Amino acid sequence: MPSQASTKPKRSQSPTESQHSIGSYLIQRLQDYGLRDIFGIPGDFVLQFYGLLEESPINVVGCTREDSAGYAADGYARVNGLGAVCVTYCVGGLSTCNSIAGAFAEKSPVVVISGAPGVEERLNDPLLHHKVREFSTQREVFEKITIAVGDLHDPLTAFREIDRCLEAAVRYKRPVYLELPRDRVHTVPDAPHTALCSVHQSHNGALQAALDEAADRIQHAKSPVIVAGVEIHRFGLREEVLELAEKNQIPMCATLLGKSVISEKHPLYLGVYEGAMGRKEVTEFVEQSDCVLLLGTFMSDINLGIYTAQLDPRNCVYVTSEQLRIGHHHFHDVLLHDFIGELQKKQLRSSKAQLKLPQREELETPEFDPSAPVTNASLFSHFDDILDNNMVVVADVGDSLFAASDLTIHKHTEFISPAYYTSMGFAIPAALGVQVANRELRPLVLVGDGAFQMTCMELSTIVRNSFNPIIVVLNNKGYTTERFLQDGPFNDILNWNYHRMPDIFGDGWGFEVHTVGELHQSMKAALAHQDAFSILNVHLEPDDISPALARLAEKMSQTI
Amino acid sequence: MPSQASTKPKRSQSPTESQHSIGSYLIQRLQDYGLRDIFGIPGDFVLQFYGLLEESPINVVGCTREDSAGYAADGYARVNGLGAVCVTYCVGGLSTCNSIAGAFAEKSPVVVISGAPGVEERLNDPLLHHKVREFSTQREVFEKITIAVGDLHDPLTAFREIDRCLEAAVRYKRPVYLELPRDRVHTVPDAPHTALCSVHQSHNGALQAALDEAADRIQHAKSPVIVAGVEIHRFGLREEVLELAEKNQIPMCATLLGKSVISEKHPLYLGVYEGAMGRKEVTEFVEQSDCVLLLGTFMSDINLGIYTAQLDPRNCVYVTSEQLRIGHHHFHDVLLHDFIGELQKKQLRSSKAQLKLPQREELETPEFDPSAPVTNASLFSHFDDILDNNMVVVADVGDSLFAASDLTIHKHTEFISPAYYTSMGFAIPAALGVQVANRELRPLVLVGDGAFQMTCMELSTIVRNSFNPIIVVLNNKGYTTERFLQDGPFNDILNWNYHRMPDIFGDGWGFEVHTVGELHQSMKAALAHQDAFSILNVHLEPDDISPALARLAEKMSQTI
Repeated sequence: MPSQASTKPKRSQSPTESQHSIGSYLIQRLQDYGLRDIFGIPGDFVLQFYGLLEESPINVVGCTREDSAGYAADGYARVNGLGAVCVTYCVGGLSTCNSIAGAFAEKSPVVVISGAPGVEERLNDPLLHHKVREFSTQREVFEKITIAVGDLHDPLTAFREIDRCLEAAVRYKRPVYLELPRDRVHTVPDAPHTALCSVHQSHNGALQAALDEAADRIQHAKSPVIVAGVEIHRFGLREEVLELAEKNQIPMCATLLGKSVISEKHPLYLGVYEGAMGRKEVTEFVEQSDCVLLLGTFMSDINLGIYTAQLDPRNCVYVTSEQLRIGHHHFHDVLLHDFIGELQKKQLRSSKAQLKLPQREELETPEFDPSAPVTNASLFSHFDDILDNNMVVVADVGDSLFAASDLTIHKHTEFISPAYYTSMGFAIPAALGVQVANRELRPLVLVGDGAFQMTCMELSTIVRNSFNPIIVVLNNKGYTTERFLQDGPFNDILNWNYHRMPDIFGDGWGFEVHTVGELHQSMKAALAHQDAFSILNVHLEPDDISPALARLAEKMSQTI
Repeated sequence: MPSQASTKPKRSQSPTESQHSIGSYLIQRLQDYGLRDIFGIPGDFVLQFYGLLEESPINVVGCTREDSAGYAADGYARVNGLGAVCVTYCVGGLSTCNSIAGAFAEKSPVVVISGAPGVEERLNDPLLHHKVREFSTQREVFEKITIAVGDLHDPLTAFREIDRCLEAAVRYKRPVYLELPRDRVHTVPDAPHTALCSVHQSHNGALQAALDEAADRIQHAKSPVIVAGVEIHRFGLREEVLELAEKNQIPMCATLLGKSVISEKHPLYLGVYEGAMGRKEVTEFVEQSDCVLLLGTFMSDINLGIYTAQLDPRNCVYVTSEQLRIGHHHFHDVLLHDFIGELQKKQLRSSKAQLKLPQREELETPEFDPSAPVTNASLFSHFDDILDNNMVVVADVGDSLFAASDLTIHKHTEFISPAYYTSMGFAIPAALGVQVANRELRPLVLVGDGAFQMTCMELSTIVRNSFNPIIVVLNNKGYTTERFLQDGPFNDILNWNYHRMPDIFGDGWGFEVHTVGELHQSMKAALAHQDAFSILNVHLEPDDISPALARLAEKMSQTI
């Protein structure tokens, strides 16, 4: 994943801070936290704020739908450290519920800014358009799916609310919600205000006790191993984890959601650990370890291979931004970065130990037969060949994700996916967000046909911005993952001519792919076409699935 | 609008009712209320229920996205009296928030059925995929945007909860939410159960007092007038209102949301009343009346022409399903259908009075010049010519809606739109829902380019079902309504080749329309092609707007 420092705000130094309007203060603070772009769709309750944004240095990226704007902001946040989406009241905000809920679940800090009816308009509780039930309805909904909610109706508290919510987004890596009534955008509060810059600290005694205990375990372990999770990326701790591993020669795995937290070319890297779903030699190495360092991992069902992971808590050091547990000892008030930051300073084991790592089972490279139909195996093998340092894999849900987990990405390539919340339709708008955050990254988007049909219109925004992702539609004619759980006609979908999408947008390159030869040719062309998006409609048999999906489906069908 | 009786459930007579599982009881009760079709997308937490649906007489309509499924269910409910959408946990349910909120705001009874993790799986609060925060998070969100929420985890209460929620949907014409954990679908409760069939009654004294007072006003009025709102359709009271008007020779208007509640060819029909936004002669007639009967109308800002309506409450009889007010007298506990049902039985005025109705100002028919560019005026004039009894106009938000309000639909044509909640993207999925409810109705879908880009993928479902709506894309290259409030580059969108959508789906007829001649030709072809959808990409100048939008924009810009 992109190397990002944990987002720390610059303090606004402007002496005229107290002359900010509520709208301009919000824009200033977003920039203090490193935000350069914002996604969204205008609407009459938020038009004044759009007017302000337009005059500001922040770049407004108009999307086709609000939920896609939410996914794009999420993808942007995963690269940039903070993302934002700006929408109108209810019809806009409530359309983002699912993508914001996903950002909450996967700890992606997205600021939702919603316009709202003016405070003065609300007298006598009129039926204004876009109103659902109460004027507070949308805010109450977002209280359920964000970490902080701020109502900017009162000039006395508005600046403080902005500070509090942005601080919470960055501290907890979760979405926050700010509601700005349209008659407050230009309101200049009277009271002076100094931007909040709160400092959170670990409890020193608890931190030292935990470090001593962890160090002791690592020193005396026969075969320690690190399992690195997505929080290592979110909190900007990748260098520290690498240092810890290299200094002490500790082998490393990643979880599926954290895939690519560790460069997969690193000599200490073993692969993705995901219980029975993962590669056998990785699973065995981790589960036989007498000291498993679970660093910033979510213990979610998919990360744990639908609970097939066999980890003995007595052998685990488990640390996240929310808890720290060593064996059965729980430690409170220890911050993730303090713990990992201090731990990596210690020399605990010989840096010259000769490690016996399990051999990586190389994926069999299918023989190159240009006329052979493309299979899941030949497709992913080809991806492995073409990935380079400037590419980022954005995987949607389904076999796009599961097959990618088996793939050893050989070069230092980024990998972004909704591997915990698993919301279909994430990939295309998220790829937009990734490229807005870093135009140099070229997304390889792996998306099933079902997921494609959900958010493909965001290709329109990709065209408007002259971005050049390569979209690979794994066209297996339906919801294939579900076919393996319970099949029925409800898993069928229409077979679109996906490769003809460029005809709609007037730009882009489309390819229909049946054979391996066509795959190689069209991927070569796609890579060469740097000017616009390419889309490959790759026909796959409905029952041709990756080994990982086969293992997963077997596990999931037991709970259906 | 389609004539529908107020939905009254058939009682399930099956003596084996107590042998129903929770899933099969729900399916039975939905059918009791007249539901024949359900919209949605499967997912692993709801697959067992999909399996049951597949075996039942209920037809499952798979959509491309959950929010579109919500709009489709809303459109279906407006024709059928009850609609339903069936989705998976969180990624599915939370995606419907906006369309369900719209159904709440506009009183369309939609049942949301969501799968959920099994009760047994929730022990120790694991991180199951699709989970946002707590297992109750999705349910808590829906408490804000539905009229009743039922959790079907407990076999002891599940049947009662199903009864209670369905009853609430039909009584209040609002959405309800039912959450069915996947390990409860096949659970058969032990306790016997008899389906609820509650009866609600008016308070007789209050009803009589209100009727007397209303009758007295109507009898003594110089110039009474009826303004009929959308509830007249929702509660199946159209015949009663017509009877009241005809018996007493009272002229009638409709609100914008209620447009077509009254046949626009009726000799007593004046037009749409919407304050300063509406046609002058209608506004004057209503506002000079000494007895305005507001029947089932929402007093919303758009219905009231952004509060330009000049109605003196002293002259109004205002009755909805939620309140009854005559002058400044409020009456409680009087049901809408009791009040209107009893009022229409009375002979209050001479049925032979010679009425002097305001002349309908005929829209100028633009001269037919085939080579002239299509304008908003020539487009809507042409619609007027081609509408017939089997067509239903489904208008999206923007000038699609406002221009249609000026249009006098000459024949008995249905009109469906989100005129209060005004959520863009409603029309295409709602047209799907309309045609699922009644295959004989052919939708004429009026949709702006911005709205089209939000939900156009639902054309895929229209193709799968061989439906034949005529989609007219009012292609004015951006969010035109907003340009008149505050313009900026954020109102621009990409100019798609909308007429090439059939190439994507492998079916349908596409037309690009620049001139009046092309409009007539392609509409003729579209009408002739009964086998599939047609789409007309009608190029309009960005500043060519309807008179109604011009009036509205002027009013709205004053509050921006």
